[in-house]
Amino acid sequence: MAFSKKIDPFLKINNDTGFGTNASNYGGRFINRDGTFNLRKEGMPFLKRYSIYHSMLTLPRWKFIALILAFYLFINLVYTVLYLLVGVDQLQGVLATTNWGKFKEAYFFSTETFTTVGYGRVNPIGDGANFVASIEAMTGFLSFALATGLMFGRFARPRAYLVFSDHALVSPFKEGTALMFRFASYKDKHTLTDVEIRVNIGLQVQKDDGTGAEYRYYDLALERTKVESLPMNWTVVHPIDDKSPLQGFGYEDMQVADVEIYVLIRGFDDVYSNLVQQRTSYTYHEIKYNRKFIPMYRESDNGNTTILELHKVNEYEAI
Amino acid sequence: MAFSKKIDPFLKINNDTGFGTNASNYGGRFINRDGTFNLRKEGMPFLKRYSIYHSMLTLPRWKFIALILAFYLFINLVYTVLYLLVGVDQLQGVLATTNWGKFKEAYFFSTETFTTVGYGRVNPIGDGANFVASIEAMTGFLSFALATGLMFGRFARPRAYLVFSDHALVSPFKEGTALMFRFASYKDKHTLTDVEIRVNIGLQVQKDDGTGAEYRYYDLALERTKVESLPMNWTVVHPIDDKSPLQGFGYEDMQVADVEIYVLIRGFDDVYSNLVQQRTSYTYHEIKYNRKFIPMYRESDNGNTTILELHKVNEYEAI
Amino acid sequence: MAFSKKIDPFLKINNDTGFGTNASNYGGRFINRDGTFNLRKEGMPFLKRYSIYHSMLTLPRWKFIALILAFYLFINLVYTVLYLLVGVDQLQGVLATTNWGKFKEAYFFSTETFTTVGYGRVNPIGDGANFVASIEAMTGFLSFALATGLMFGRFARPRAYLVFSDHALVSPFKEGTALMFRFASYKDKHTLTDVEIRVNIGLQVQKDDGTGAEYRYYDLALERTKVESLPMNWTVVHPIDDKSPLQGFGYEDMQVADVEIYVLIRGFDDVYSNLVQQRTSYTYHEIKYNRKFIPMYRESDNGNTTILELHKVNEYEAI
Amino acid sequence: MAFSKKIDPFLKINNDTGFGTNASNYGGRFINRDGTFNLRKEGMPFLKRYSIYHSMLTLPRWKFIALILAFYLFINLVYTVLYLLVGVDQLQGVLATTNWGKFKEAYFFSTETFTTVGYGRVNPIGDGANFVASIEAMTGFLSFALATGLMFGRFARPRAYLVFSDHALVSPFKEGTALMFRFASYKDKHTLTDVEIRVNIGLQVQKDDGTGAEYRYYDLALERTKVESLPMNWTVVHPIDDKSPLQGFGYEDMQVADVEIYVLIRGFDDVYSNLVQQRTSYTYHEIKYNRKFIPMYRESDNGNTTILELHKVNEYEAI
Repeated sequence: MAFSKKIDPFLKINNDTGFGTNASNYGGRFINRDGTFNLRKEGMPFLKRYSIYHSMLTLPRWKFIALILAFYLFINLVYTVLYLLVGVDQLQGVLATTNWGKFKEAYFFSTETFTTVGYGRVNPIGDGANFVASIEAMTGFLSFALATGLMFGRFARPRAYLVFSDHALVSPFKEGTALMFRFASYKDKHTLTDVEIRVNIGLQVQKDDGTGAEYRYYDLALERTKVESLPMNWTVVHPIDDKSPLQGFGYEDMQVADVEIYVLIRGFDDVYSNLVQQRTSYTYHEIKYNRKFIPMYRESDNGNTTILELHKVNEYEAI
Repeated sequence: MAFSKKIDPFLKINNDTGFGTNASNYGGRFINRDGTFNLRKEGMPFLKRYSIYHSMLTLPRWKFIALILAFYLFINLVYTVLYLLVGVDQLQGVLATTNWGKFKEAYFFSTETFTTVGYGRVNPIGDGANFVASIEAMTGFLSFALATGLMFGRFARPRAYLVFSDHALVSPFKEGTALMFRFASYKDKHTLTDVEIRVNIGLQVQKDDGTGAEYRYYDLALERTKVESLPMNWTVVHPIDDKSPLQGFGYEDMQVADVEIYVLIRGFDDVYSNLVQQRTSYTYHEIKYNRKFIPMYRESDNGNTTILELHKVNEYEAI
Repeated sequence: MAFSKKIDPFLKINNDTGFGTNASNYGGRFINRDGTFNLRKEGMPFLKRYSIYHSMLTLPRWKFIALILAFYLFINLVYTVLYLLVGVDQLQGVLATTNWGKFKEAYFFSTETFTTVGYGRVNPIGDGANFVASIEAMTGFLSFALATGLMFGRFARPRAYLVFSDHALVSPFKEGTALMFRFASYKDKHTLTDVEIRVNIGLQVQKDDGTGAEYRYYDLALERTKVESLPMNWTVVHPIDDKSPLQGFGYEDMQVADVEIYVLIRGFDDVYSNLVQQRTSYTYHEIKYNRKFIPMYRESDNGNTTILELHKVNEYEAI
Repeated sequence: MAFSKKIDPFLKINNDTGFGTNASNYGGRFINRDGTFNLRKEGMPFLKRYSIYHSMLTLPRWKFIALILAFYLFINLVYTVLYLLVGVDQLQGVLATTNWGKFKEAYFFSTETFTTVGYGRVNPIGDGANFVASIEAMTGFLSFALATGLMFGRFARPRAYLVFSDHALVSPFKEGTALMFRFASYKDKHTLTDVEIRVNIGLQVQKDDGTGAEYRYYDLALERTKVESLPMNWTVVHPIDDKSPLQGFGYEDMQVADVEIYVLIRGFDDVYSNLVQQRTSYTYHEIKYNRKFIPMYRESDNGNTTILELHKVNEYEAI
């Protein structure tokens, strides 16, 4: 196994990233492009590990709606079966005479009860049906209550709406080069305040005693680590100078060292009045040499406002 | 194009405002008086950029109510059409005989279902009507659930309730002058704690190499940048001394330099138990020379309390 | 008017309290015992100043319930009048024949509609009654939605549950004396973390130029300004030494100087996972000389736990 | 009573823990393993001390559901009694003729009203029944509203999901030994950011004047007090060196000194976008000598991800 170039041994290693150094125990990238960690947990019951709240809040909208619909169909089927078990004759006002017709009447009686509409043409007269209906109405109300909470939670969950460039570029900067990537908040009206960025790099290097590989982590020094507000895009710049662990690295060196760059952005969103953060990472595949970004904003035609061109976030040119 | 007075080149430029320096790409003021950014985003689908949550939370109250009413009328019309499509004969108990009468009965049956009132005089007997009704009742309940969330969100959204003076004044201060503006929290019971203020200035100046204009940003040093609580008004004071980028500026200089002053206030609101912030800005149009504010509080008649006179927030006198 | 003792002119004045120094414009104490500010605002429409959210969240529970009941009775009366105006004959199923009877039937029909119960014995057949009922059901649902939000808001609003001693004491401390008061969190399970305290004093003193009185504010140095957690009570100690503005003050001096001591406690409550804060103040009336607090906790009888005796928070003894 | 070894008198005592030093007033451990404080409060009415919000939010799920069911059964019984008191003859449509039958009809009428289903077969005609029903429908709606809030609150309450090793170990570390324990976040998707840890120790020692025992508190210096993110487990390491209060302590010394180690972890959870914290403690019973933890993560079989093995959090081996 080849190892990466030697890194200046006097560079300060960051041991506080929370990632481990033992190369043989780790698999793949640490952080996915979407900011989630590439990690699986096991050894606890699924239900204890599983975060329903997180799932319900992050499901795509159409899946969330489909889930609610499916639940609605399913729970009514369950109650329909219960009404059939206690006997349709305990439901007054049923007009159907066939089994299939009775099933349908029971099903729609169930939906009327679950949603608390209760037209009343069909209504329970026997103890069994009355009891099932009383429980169903309660669970119906509570289900919608839960749905209320989840829908509100989905709306109100503070989160950052950042779009990142797909690639990080090694571009000319002052007399040398710099690693750059950029991002912007894509939601209208969501402007972050006091935005901070932290960028780490993880590399696989030969151990000092030569016995194998280990991961090392360094902070990447940035031209700017904080902006007071983020109305437009921010191009993050790490100058590749004497103090950079990337000094002298070419694409092949990055590949050999299995380079991964970890990005964490955090700021105050005044719509949520809350701190929000977003992560992403760039592996060596996503780093391009000798490119530079092209501007992504312009003056409006009437000269009265500035326009941020989000579709250009990943536009760069060769140099 | 004329340029503003030369600014002391040793003054520390603030490059971390998040605003760009390229004068030719920008249009108009950066921040509107109401604190929003004068910026448009494009290049992403509207629905991705659009923040429903933000809109619903910041709509004026009457518009929010009108929207709910309009939605209610509209969704019931949609369902009415569906009932008419499956046939009014599937609705038992309809008394009307004319088409218009049947339409109205279907419409009111729809409202009874959507709100889950379900009187039951009119009730579905056919499969089609039953199915539509079961879906309508569910969507009705969920719609109100959503409305619940939004109404609560509107109530509970932490925000600052600050009223700013319309103008910033250049007033006498100690031996020289100072730029001043003032503000107060206008909501009863909402007193901010640990209030911080940050004031930047943006000016258009000639580039050092003389090739055109660029924007530069400076912090404005303040007599006081923090108060422990804000029960009353706060007059923010920037002394125009040797260290001020406004040193020696007259109104015409401000105009030429297209001066804009950015204000950010932040504090802890203990009703929301949350940090809140509010922005505003003053352009050179909104700066008055040789004026000073008049006091805006007085002792109550019985001497037992202090009265803050909010209507005086913008009252000043010539000097 | 007599003035207080001269205060050491080298003591650092705190100009950042947010309170003003102009004695003639202020009335009474600044902060009430319950932590609210003794201040009135005027000059803006009541509805703009009034914080419904704050009121609904801080109303005593019984008033909140009474308000909901009153609203329920009132809104149903309004709708009853509307039904009577469009004509009770538009309500099918009414059994009553007298006017009073019809009024009652209309009223109960209204409650059935507002709560979306909709039994259906009485049900609307005319356009007018149908229209009013469709609006009522919607407003009913929305009203309960609003109530949901408010009830949840009341529950979930982060706040500190601190009980303070009624008096501050001047007690022996080391070789001299100290001003002391104490407090504790009285809610079971609500233990604050990283609790900070800030204590200021406001005094009315003669202006340096001798032309009258002004308010001055000082920080009171504390033996301890932070504890890591607050499971029990905390006795706050301000040593009255050379650096204290209270050095050499007797009760009469306090009275003359109209002394008021401002207290702000802030900590992280892990039930709410939120910062909470509470204020109080002590005026010179509430300061006792030559007293000391008696302990307010003990070991449980079985020796396995510690008991905090909240009723003793204000118990002190003469010395 | 025996006392513990003398502790280096120059070690800095931490007086800001919030715990008291008076040994005779305290009983048992201060913090339970689950992070709650071992403390009881008295001297205030139960209802004032009791935090319903906390209870409802922290009840085990099955108890919460059982409570809702029990409340539902109970409240309907109450209303049933009211209907029986005003007379079942005020309920139209009752089919039953026996007392027990009437009771059941009244009960199910009550459930229909409380849940706002309102089928309408049975419906109130007398003033009394109408009045009770109108109140019941309102309280029903409000009860479900409250349930909504509580269910949402249970879901949305920010909290840390940390699992700690059952024991703290005294393991070899560099040239000496160190006290170690470890923990991990066990919920999928809940990765903490900027995690901080604080570890204190409490010991019972002889007073300097030899008159008895007192508690003393020290901070335990850690190899690392902060990690930037916590995707995996964190082994917390306190080197037992010259600056450690545990220097030279054997198990018996710990026992004599009644050692308790207080742990507080805090971090930012980006699902909740909120700070969360969790406490625990280790008493001397839970400290093992000459053991070391075994690794608790491995590479996945396909080499593409890392697996955290939560069941191993307490696995250690003798050395």
